[in-house]
Amino acid sequence: MGLDHAAAKPHERMSAALAEDLAGVNALIRDRMASEHAPRIPEVTAHLVEAGGKRVRPMLTLACARLCGYTGTDHVKLAATVEFIHTATLLHDDVVDESEKRRGRPTANLLWDNKSSVLVGDYLFARAFQLMVEPGSLRVLSILSNAAATIAEGEVLQLSAAMNIDTTEATYLQVIRGKTAALFEAACEVGGVISDSDEAIVRALAAYGDGLGVAFQMADDLLDWGGVDAASTGTLDKNIGDDFRERKLTLPVIRAIAAADAEQRAFWARTIAKGDQHDGDLDEALRLLTLHGTLAQTRDEAHAHVARAKAALADLPDDPIRDMLGDLADYVVARLN
Amino acid sequence: MGLDHAAAKPHERMSAALAEDLAGVNALIRDRMASEHAPRIPEVTAHLVEAGGKRVRPMLTLACARLCGYTGTDHVKLAATVEFIHTATLLHDDVVDESEKRRGRPTANLLWDNKSSVLVGDYLFARAFQLMVEPGSLRVLSILSNAAATIAEGEVLQLSAAMNIDTTEATYLQVIRGKTAALFEAACEVGGVISDSDEAIVRALAAYGDGLGVAFQMADDLLDWGGVDAASTGTLDKNIGDDFRERKLTLPVIRAIAAADAEQRAFWARTIAKGDQHDGDLDEALRLLTLHGTLAQTRDEAHAHVARAKAALADLPDDPIRDMLGDLADYVVARLN
Repeated sequence: MGLDHAAAKPHERMSAALAEDLAGVNALIRDRMASEHAPRIPEVTAHLVEAGGKRVRPMLTLACARLCGYTGTDHVKLAATVEFIHTATLLHDDVVDESEKRRGRPTANLLWDNKSSVLVGDYLFARAFQLMVEPGSLRVLSILSNAAATIAEGEVLQLSAAMNIDTTEATYLQVIRGKTAALFEAACEVGGVISDSDEAIVRALAAYGDGLGVAFQMADDLLDWGGVDAASTGTLDKNIGDDFRERKLTLPVIRAIAAADAEQRAFWARTIAKGDQHDGDLDEALRLLTLHGTLAQTRDEAHAHVARAKAALADLPDDPIRDMLGDLADYVVARLN
Repeated sequence: MGLDHAAAKPHERMSAALAEDLAGVNALIRDRMASEHAPRIPEVTAHLVEAGGKRVRPMLTLACARLCGYTGTDHVKLAATVEFIHTATLLHDDVVDESEKRRGRPTANLLWDNKSSVLVGDYLFARAFQLMVEPGSLRVLSILSNAAATIAEGEVLQLSAAMNIDTTEATYLQVIRGKTAALFEAACEVGGVISDSDEAIVRALAAYGDGLGVAFQMADDLLDWGGVDAASTGTLDKNIGDDFRERKLTLPVIRAIAAADAEQRAFWARTIAKGDQHDGDLDEALRLLTLHGTLAQTRDEAHAHVARAKAALADLPDDPIRDMLGDLADYVVARLN
């Protein structure tokens, strides 16, 4: 279909391979986000759902089901469920973060109001639960409802960990599991479960999704600092340092605080705990992260989680889709080098 | 146990009759709202869950299960589920309404912040879904996830119908189904479903819950105007007129607008649509509702829904619990006379 396979990114190749299934997911999403009674709902959700996310999460469900030889149609429902859960959390995140942009467009809370974002997010959660009941698998329901609880718990944890310079790596891992890895893991796992795969296969899919999700979020957190070599290029890029300004503690900072001397600790206490930030502080923060090597360490951690994800793939059927999942994992950290 | 049966209110007698089950519900709620990782969660929820609501919704589930001769323990899980859903919607409602008081205490969004209320509400929704999966009944899951969607849809509808003086009675009914009746109905229905009752019994329980819920909300909306005879006592009571000030359209106003002449319609357009309210407007509004008889009509509508709820009880087993359900329905409108 004119897609240049050598040049295409892994998620683009996967999207081409799963085109028919993905079209089914998109049609189902449009159908189920409609509301007979409340026209505000499709207005708000269309804005977000049509905004052109990469549909990575539903693709994982579709890919894992296909990889396991699934021939039914419930994978489309579960993929749409996963996207609904993701979209609902985005709506609520934007309220919590007071965000004004998402994927380069104004956020729903800015276009409408926070109230609509809260309530339409609730509607999407409820729609997700309706959809996930339909395949009739209690195990799928248990996996997805557990993921939803982990997501919500991670969000609350992130909120209370923000501005706290005593945040531990264990807390950070819990936060990113909630923020990203729990849904990646569940998206993969349910693909195996509806295919009635062996327990070892289901476990491998879950491990792949978890490793991919943790690596993905760590890479994201590193890129918020401009990557490993940002100190040499400086902080001119305006997209750098959002987490610092919002006083969120991610792995590079947590490790730099752990390695800080008294003066450096006072710097973090002032800028993150107290929120007293001035010109030059972002550069100084970046200097400290570079000094202690924590940006490079974060990249190495992300690579380790990718390696874990790829190792899990070894237990799965040899198939072009398995190779794409491997390439997708590599791609998550390729942007860091 | 010292409870004076003649003087006790119906929900108090029901609470005494179901004391053991209710203790189980309360223990389960405390257990499941705990979070190993995020201590903020029990702080926020304890504030709300322990604040002493009447537990009417979970009591309906317990009562309906017992009435159907249920001898297992899953009714306790479903009752806790229903209370979790209710509590989650309260948290989000307070954010949306910018409320400062709930049951006479400061709301969570005032004590903590809107962010915590949004995210802890999401956590409670997720916990509700985890709990409702446990009994392993797909039909129960379908009923409760449908109720959750109706609730969310009704909330969005209420938001977009506020300030709109062309709101119809059909929209109002949809809003109050979402706000109150959908969860009452589901709470009753699942009590019958887990008891493996005949279809006719399950339908009767659902009809009872719906009638009770609609009547309950209509009575609430009427009491916000001080009841049928408020015009004669005046608007001195500060609790009167919240909906008017928040420009929410409830049945008495919708009917008064439908019956309005040009001048009266201009009054509603100014005060509700435009939100331009002055001293004396609340009295004038009350005068118009009294003039058109819409407060009395709303009371009569509430009575009709109570009659419908009680008629449904005729199909249920003759049992002291059935009588308590009937008394509970009467009590909802007794406050109006």
